[in-house]
Amino acid sequence: MSDSNSSPANRPIAIFDSGLGGLTVARAVASLLTRENIIYFGDTARVPYGTKSERTIRRYAVEDVNFLLRFEPKLVVVACNTVSAIAMDHLRGTFRVPLIGVVEPGARAAVRAAGRGKVGIIGTEATIASGAYQRAVRNLDGGIEILALPTPLLAPIVEEGREWDDPVVTAALRGYLAPFRDAWVNALVLGCTHYPVLKEAVRREMGDEVTVVDSAEETAAEVKRFLCDKEMLCDTPSFPQRRFFVSDSSQRFLSIGRRFFGADLVNVREISPDEFFFQK
Amino acid sequence: MSDSNSSPANRPIAIFDSGLGGLTVARAVASLLTRENIIYFGDTARVPYGTKSERTIRRYAVEDVNFLLRFEPKLVVVACNTVSAIAMDHLRGTFRVPLIGVVEPGARAAVRAAGRGKVGIIGTEATIASGAYQRAVRNLDGGIEILALPTPLLAPIVEEGREWDDPVVTAALRGYLAPFRDAWVNALVLGCTHYPVLKEAVRREMGDEVTVVDSAEETAAEVKRFLCDKEMLCDTPSFPQRRFFVSDSSQRFLSIGRRFFGADLVNVREISPDEFFFQK
Repeated sequence: MSDSNSSPANRPIAIFDSGLGGLTVARAVASLLTRENIIYFGDTARVPYGTKSERTIRRYAVEDVNFLLRFEPKLVVVACNTVSAIAMDHLRGTFRVPLIGVVEPGARAAVRAAGRGKVGIIGTEATIASGAYQRAVRNLDGGIEILALPTPLLAPIVEEGREWDDPVVTAALRGYLAPFRDAWVNALVLGCTHYPVLKEAVRREMGDEVTVVDSAEETAAEVKRFLCDKEMLCDTPSFPQRRFFVSDSSQRFLSIGRRFFGADLVNVREISPDEFFFQK
Repeated sequence: MSDSNSSPANRPIAIFDSGLGGLTVARAVASLLTRENIIYFGDTARVPYGTKSERTIRRYAVEDVNFLLRFEPKLVVVACNTVSAIAMDHLRGTFRVPLIGVVEPGARAAVRAAGRGKVGIIGTEATIASGAYQRAVRNLDGGIEILALPTPLLAPIVEEGREWDDPVVTAALRGYLAPFRDAWVNALVLGCTHYPVLKEAVRREMGDEVTVVDSAEETAAEVKRFLCDKEMLCDTPSFPQRRFFVSDSSQRFLSIGRRFFGADLVNVREISPDEFFFQK
């Protein structure tokens, strides 16, 4: 490996999401790979993706990656579950940069946790309807039983900043999780980057015997494994850069994003549409 | 008035919203003005607007009106409370077509209903933060007491199709409406086009002595008054056209939109980004 700054190993890791949620993934990557430069992009002008059509999600995902390519990343992490579920093949067919999504790592952790038991999956309407998590789980264990249901209100609940003991959180989780409790799932995948904020409330509702799987840490581990394999871990001893870009309203991003990233967000910039949309 | 089809009076009424919610306004306009041709546009590819910045909301609103101008409407109804609250002045400065928003009609109905009492207003974060409803109410009655609070979860709750007696609806409304009950408001404005779907649940929570104001009907009345004044009511005896355009996923629009419009939606077309975004 070279010590030069222009070495591929010293190029940044790019991470994107439809909005703020992917900051939980950025946080896990930043914690595990403390020397890496990270560029984050949140498409806050068009969030959420999870209620939109596959065609629109694919188009947005291509534009998001296009924007990040200007930073010459060594790797792009698709931190959005919806994009990971709908558009990974499309992105891999469109771009040459290596891409890691959150669905495969989440599925792997779920199968490991479930043992010979059942796997439950919650996520946005688009994620669940795509069947991507279900396929990823079956690819790892063809015989495993799966229950997958959309929980569309959880992301807006988290964005509103409600606490885990809030009556609305309790009522929503009770309703959404009842089928999973009735089915006696052994592992439950939080198939949306917003949901880890509600992890404790989900645990309380599901009971201690159910493993609650958060793909953020598993994805960070996959990123590390990939970079190790390719001998592309950053080898500069300098303080790493962490830069954040949003397509709308960096003030809202700052106030809510802090909870997701677990630290103050500095180096945040709101980009104009001309810099971003419909680049070819 | 002329009988010719090219007469300005026989041009359509255009109505737009960030998504589906404006269909409640389209429904009220269609019921009151049964002979008018109506063009509806829902920007479902970028919905919701209410959590986004003023700059982004203004930009989206200009693009929405630009799209509708190709139909040469005699009038554009801004059925979105967020756009009506944030961008009316900007739109009026940008376009020559007459524009009617939902804030003024809603405020007028609220002041009338409140008498000498207090007015409450609920809406998206952007609508409430803009202060537009508060200003509109004060312009009509400078001494009136106003309580305005954002209720960001109600629109996603309605979009998910929850019924009025659902535990999540009950918990959310109880929390959101408690300050209005404590303040003894006499009228409560439903300052988002999604909320009329929850009107009965709001009434149950607030009690019979509070008038719940839905701007859709008041806006339709304003549209009729405007067209009468200008002698621009449609004078063709033929069956009126009702056409619907969305920027994403007409299937979702059909299934959920039916509840808002109160009838099956026919003549729905999903437009491509090339037809719409960033027209000059």
